[in-house]
Amino acid sequence: MNWSVLDNQMMSRAIQLARKGFYTTRPNPSVGCVIVNDNQIVGEGYHQKAGEPHAEVHALRMAGELARGATAYVTLEPCSHYGRTPPCALALINIGVKRVVVAVEDPNPQVGGRGIQMLRDAGIQVDVGLHRDEAYALNLGFMKRMESGLPWVTVKLAASLDGKTALSNGVSKWITGPEARRDVQRLRLRSCALITGIETVLADDPSLNVRYSELGSLRAQLSESQVLQPLRVVLDSRARMPITAALFAIESPILLVSTVSYSSDFMVQLPAHVTCLQLPAIEGRISLSALLSYLGKSCNQVLIEAGATLAGAFIGSGLADELVLYQAMKILGGQGRNLLELPDYQMMADIPTLKLVDERKVGADTRFTLRLESNPSLANK
Amino acid sequence: MNWSVLDNQMMSRAIQLARKGFYTTRPNPSVGCVIVNDNQIVGEGYHQKAGEPHAEVHALRMAGELARGATAYVTLEPCSHYGRTPPCALALINIGVKRVVVAVEDPNPQVGGRGIQMLRDAGIQVDVGLHRDEAYALNLGFMKRMESGLPWVTVKLAASLDGKTALSNGVSKWITGPEARRDVQRLRLRSCALITGIETVLADDPSLNVRYSELGSLRAQLSESQVLQPLRVVLDSRARMPITAALFAIESPILLVSTVSYSSDFMVQLPAHVTCLQLPAIEGRISLSALLSYLGKSCNQVLIEAGATLAGAFIGSGLADELVLYQAMKILGGQGRNLLELPDYQMMADIPTLKLVDERKVGADTRFTLRLESNPSLANK
Repeated sequence: MNWSVLDNQMMSRAIQLARKGFYTTRPNPSVGCVIVNDNQIVGEGYHQKAGEPHAEVHALRMAGELARGATAYVTLEPCSHYGRTPPCALALINIGVKRVVVAVEDPNPQVGGRGIQMLRDAGIQVDVGLHRDEAYALNLGFMKRMESGLPWVTVKLAASLDGKTALSNGVSKWITGPEARRDVQRLRLRSCALITGIETVLADDPSLNVRYSELGSLRAQLSESQVLQPLRVVLDSRARMPITAALFAIESPILLVSTVSYSSDFMVQLPAHVTCLQLPAIEGRISLSALLSYLGKSCNQVLIEAGATLAGAFIGSGLADELVLYQAMKILGGQGRNLLELPDYQMMADIPTLKLVDERKVGADTRFTLRLESNPSLANK
Repeated sequence: MNWSVLDNQMMSRAIQLARKGFYTTRPNPSVGCVIVNDNQIVGEGYHQKAGEPHAEVHALRMAGELARGATAYVTLEPCSHYGRTPPCALALINIGVKRVVVAVEDPNPQVGGRGIQMLRDAGIQVDVGLHRDEAYALNLGFMKRMESGLPWVTVKLAASLDGKTALSNGVSKWITGPEARRDVQRLRLRSCALITGIETVLADDPSLNVRYSELGSLRAQLSESQVLQPLRVVLDSRARMPITAALFAIESPILLVSTVSYSSDFMVQLPAHVTCLQLPAIEGRISLSALLSYLGKSCNQVLIEAGATLAGAFIGSGLADELVLYQAMKILGGQGRNLLELPDYQMMADIPTLKLVDERKVGADTRFTLRLESNPSLANK
């Protein structure tokens, strides 16, 4: 397909619009739409929040009668099913658009090409694939969940240059700087769920919420009431969670996952925003696959904020998709605590394969974003 | 001082010239000189090799009579003493230059302002400090040695993102990529001496020489015969060096340092390019301060290429000035081997203070250059 300059510009604009919903649409995807008639933008919009109108509806409302005979640029295939809103493909047909340009197909099994087919059946020209990679990247979590039923798993790590997270006595405040710690707030904000381990809760007693005051420049595009708190998940295999944990003081959803039952005494004291889930144990530990399948019902992205053992278990088992490592320009020495516990690899060919996708300074620290590529030796473990 | 545009341009040119000698002048400093008469460059030159003429002499020869009444830009204070060549300050006076611009004073106790004084006494205008930092940085090792009697100590490190240098079974080939390993050749080339430990010799049997074929683009500015091989120093406290070591096969100087005598059997078999040095032991180990004082007599820069214990000893004792860390985008896990053994710090305030001076990609790896700042808690250790 030879895309015109106008096509390129308009799809870029649509992606720019989609980004505006990046932190607020979950578990829906972020989508943008631009409607162009006679080389003029006559309508544009983006999906803002699950349950509210889709991007196409906003754009069509703005365009009104000017949408007739126009071209619609959409970052994701228009939906073809009746969900909380009627199908967008139908809306585009009814108003009489002439052409629809789609960046990427919707892997949602309820759509899966049917939106495009519906448009074509109505005699509308549909061109697919303009800025596909960018549009895909915008909804990595949604795409993975639709394709596999599992959420996109990001492991957040912070360490010194020599890979240590604390001195031998556990002292770790602070290895990374305030900018890096604020940056983590954005990772939390984009996540449907945060996962931590009971050891981290017992050692640090964290709140694991998104703190609006630490969102920096994001506050200009997001009001405090728009902040979606991620589900806070604690892996607590042997039901050791203390009822006094700081987590409970913040009224946003919490999921306690164990392999044994909590005491009834503990259960009766639990606040209403806390849910308990019992999952099968594998060698005494919670099955991480089972956990991710469970979360995959509603979570696009999950963030692992845990210690070396749990973070390493997600990576070593091949369940993690991405690492975000904040590295401080410090050295702690060999007696410090290790960043990641992984299997005792015997050959270089066995270590996880990482692909660097981004590297930048965040304050005085360096932030690496790396993708984990599927490693044959890890399959089925 | 308000420097003119011409002043700035000419000193930049002089520094550019000085850089041409960067790899060949040791143990002398790299110096460049530009002579300008009536806004025209009439002479320029740089110091190429110890024992050969200084930068000023080259530039004055080129300028000839045009040096009379001219301005000379020199990156380092002209020498005032009779060494292997007569004093450059005298040459500038004799030819009749009118003004000398100096980037930085020579801390050499044999010069130490006397070059500048000699010029001023002869009625020449001398302006000092233009591009001082850059000129200083060009000769970090020489400057430190002249000021303290000790060489500039760079510790070369290579590790994974989680600070590991090998798997638990010792497998380490290859963590960093070929570009990073070639880059190390440049570090060696700029060094008067390389220091390694007997453990590294016994484990890896390295040659530790500069390999011309791996110098990449540097070969365009340097012929093979211009390559100065660094002195290879092995710290071999208990005299365990095997006579079969690969090091001995390459005929460039080697220094074996021990705290006990080598056997006469070993001594008689040693090739002529090997020297033995016995140094005092401190808690059973070679005194690193004594070693550096010894090397400081003739070495501007030394490079530590050693394991976690020896590299850590230079850093932990406050004797290292700089770290160059090649970091591979890999994770090996907590069972891998640690990068650095340091004292068992109990507080964050006790860890070494690092300042990042450069960060860049070298092939797929990231190279960090960091300066160690003197740490009060390390003093006198």
